[in-house]
Amino acid sequence: MDEKYMELALELAQKAAGRTSPNPLVGAVIVKDNKIIGQGYHKKAGTPHAERIALLEAGEKAQDADLYVTLEPCNHFGRTPPCTEAIIAAKLKNVYVAVLDPNPLVAGQGIMRLRNMGLNVVTGIKEQEARRLNEVFFKYIITKLPYVVLKSASSLDGKIATREGHSQWITGEKARNFGHKLRNMYDAIMVGSGTVLVDDPQLTCRLENGKDPIRIIVDSKLSISPEAKVLNLKSTAPTIIATTKDAPREKYQRLVSKAEILEVNSGDRVDLKQLIKILGDREITSILVEGGATLSGSLIEEKLIDKFYLFYAPLIIRGSSAPGFAGGLGPARLEDALKLKDVAIRKIGEDILVTAYPYYSETVEE
Amino acid sequence: MDEKYMELALELAQKAAGRTSPNPLVGAVIVKDNKIIGQGYHKKAGTPHAERIALLEAGEKAQDADLYVTLEPCNHFGRTPPCTEAIIAAKLKNVYVAVLDPNPLVAGQGIMRLRNMGLNVVTGIKEQEARRLNEVFFKYIITKLPYVVLKSASSLDGKIATREGHSQWITGEKARNFGHKLRNMYDAIMVGSGTVLVDDPQLTCRLENGKDPIRIIVDSKLSISPEAKVLNLKSTAPTIIATTKDAPREKYQRLVSKAEILEVNSGDRVDLKQLIKILGDREITSILVEGGATLSGSLIEEKLIDKFYLFYAPLIIRGSSAPGFAGGLGPARLEDALKLKDVAIRKIGEDILVTAYPYYSETVEE
Repeated sequence: MDEKYMELALELAQKAAGRTSPNPLVGAVIVKDNKIIGQGYHKKAGTPHAERIALLEAGEKAQDADLYVTLEPCNHFGRTPPCTEAIIAAKLKNVYVAVLDPNPLVAGQGIMRLRNMGLNVVTGIKEQEARRLNEVFFKYIITKLPYVVLKSASSLDGKIATREGHSQWITGEKARNFGHKLRNMYDAIMVGSGTVLVDDPQLTCRLENGKDPIRIIVDSKLSISPEAKVLNLKSTAPTIIATTKDAPREKYQRLVSKAEILEVNSGDRVDLKQLIKILGDREITSILVEGGATLSGSLIEEKLIDKFYLFYAPLIIRGSSAPGFAGGLGPARLEDALKLKDVAIRKIGEDILVTAYPYYSETVEE
Repeated sequence: MDEKYMELALELAQKAAGRTSPNPLVGAVIVKDNKIIGQGYHKKAGTPHAERIALLEAGEKAQDADLYVTLEPCNHFGRTPPCTEAIIAAKLKNVYVAVLDPNPLVAGQGIMRLRNMGLNVVTGIKEQEARRLNEVFFKYIITKLPYVVLKSASSLDGKIATREGHSQWITGEKARNFGHKLRNMYDAIMVGSGTVLVDDPQLTCRLENGKDPIRIIVDSKLSISPEAKVLNLKSTAPTIIATTKDAPREKYQRLVSKAEILEVNSGDRVDLKQLIKILGDREITSILVEGGATLSGSLIEEKLIDKFYLFYAPLIIRGSSAPGFAGGLGPARLEDALKLKDVAIRKIGEDILVTAYPYYSETVEE
């Protein structure tokens, strides 16, 4: 067993990031006599699984070879036949698996099938990395709730705009380009009505061959204008306005031809927990939240964020009334602040990117 | 010439950080036949210069050897006789100098003297590093103004406290220990009266053999209590309360036995530019500013900060009224935000440390 082949399988899997939803990212490498004789990754739901692509390349040489695969091979008929049978038919010798299927209904069954047929199966190789690779899938498959990612772009003092709301552009070109990669990667993008009113963004992915995320505007009072850019786009992805059943009727009439209006609950404010659940029911497996301060603050307060991408420009904006990236009332005591873990820092051009996970989230260490 | 010896000289110089004021940090290494035969660094004002210590160790072997020194050797009588004469007497062959003396009145004179006496002198080796090593000295010697360093300890959303002012402790033990190293390194520490009122800090250096910085409280209205810890300490360093000539007389009477009261100017608010100048005239070469938001915001607004140490704990505090580390009104437009350069990031325990310099400051690149 050589971990480097699992690392390669993980790299292969990553290539389809943002393309396989609702399926996981999977990579596979087949090795014989220390030579790679087959490799593959799952490209898109409905297309062949990684193991099958690798087996096809290896052909008859697969006999007595070793398979490295980032996720437990499936043992059930989905959109494609079970991979376990193909592995057995190819007469592989050793199967190295990074992580078991997270679905509790099928976890371990693929491995059991292979073992029963006489193959040697080892699990847990690069398991942490494999879980992180599919963090979206792992949450969604277990909870049917989308994985919610908060992205901020602030100055080093945490401000997302000046006191007068001026915010374009805080971060540099490379960071903004990274932002478009995130839009390409996650199923949906979510902003509050304030962001639409102030910035009038398009919320599309401006990468070549990029995929526009489904746009979700949280707008309890239906206050955005029918002329907003986000409602007048050419895009393959739809726009959803999430609101309450008590939003003004005349505003509803103004907007209903421009986007789907989703009435989440009665009352003054959109119930974010309920909204997230409804979006999960629609097979939206991941949401990228791009602010503003009020929406981000509420999502943090309700413990609905799974991951943070915090960009910091080399700037100090200052101003006690300039908005920070997490608004709202906030806690009185430090003990009630949100604690983050697995904090990683890197530079993106002139900017700093901090990625982190909240302590309440499912973790790779658990 | 081998840069590694200059790197060693820089490392030696660094050992006396915070100990040599108002003198610079200097390190020297003497090399012959690729062997180090002498090394030294300047430990404290009034004690021998680095070159002399290295020469003493090398003894007669110094003849035809090479000297690596981080700063141009002095050619004038100060508290010690000129180093150039000692170098000439020792019959060294090559002298490698990182950077010229920043004092325009003497810059180049040491080198000229050595060259005139037949020594081969090369300058500019590791010059950037040598300037940064003595950034405090370089500013002070030219401007007679102290080098002003802002240290913040905030959450990742830039908050230094919750909406109710709760702030102990945001950063972890390692970061706080690093903070004490900074107190040990800089001549003085400065805070606003709000910090004294809310946090009642001691502002001392709690390192073993640490040096307490001179404490400066900016308090335009003399609002702090005579019972404040900072006024009732055992410390070798004095406390100065900087105020205005118009501060209430009865408050002056309450505080005058507890600390020196420095009346900077007439009017409502302490003129910070004037205060910094007065402190420079007193041979205070460096000031560590530890907040709060109002003082830090004003110093940034008046372009008085030379360097930033920004600590971030893995926390999101939230709250639109929770104070950020740079308060005040702040600019209306993004173009007027403070731009930072030479941004470096590292982890200190669980926390992140960002160091940076404002664009208006003297730079090593200039």
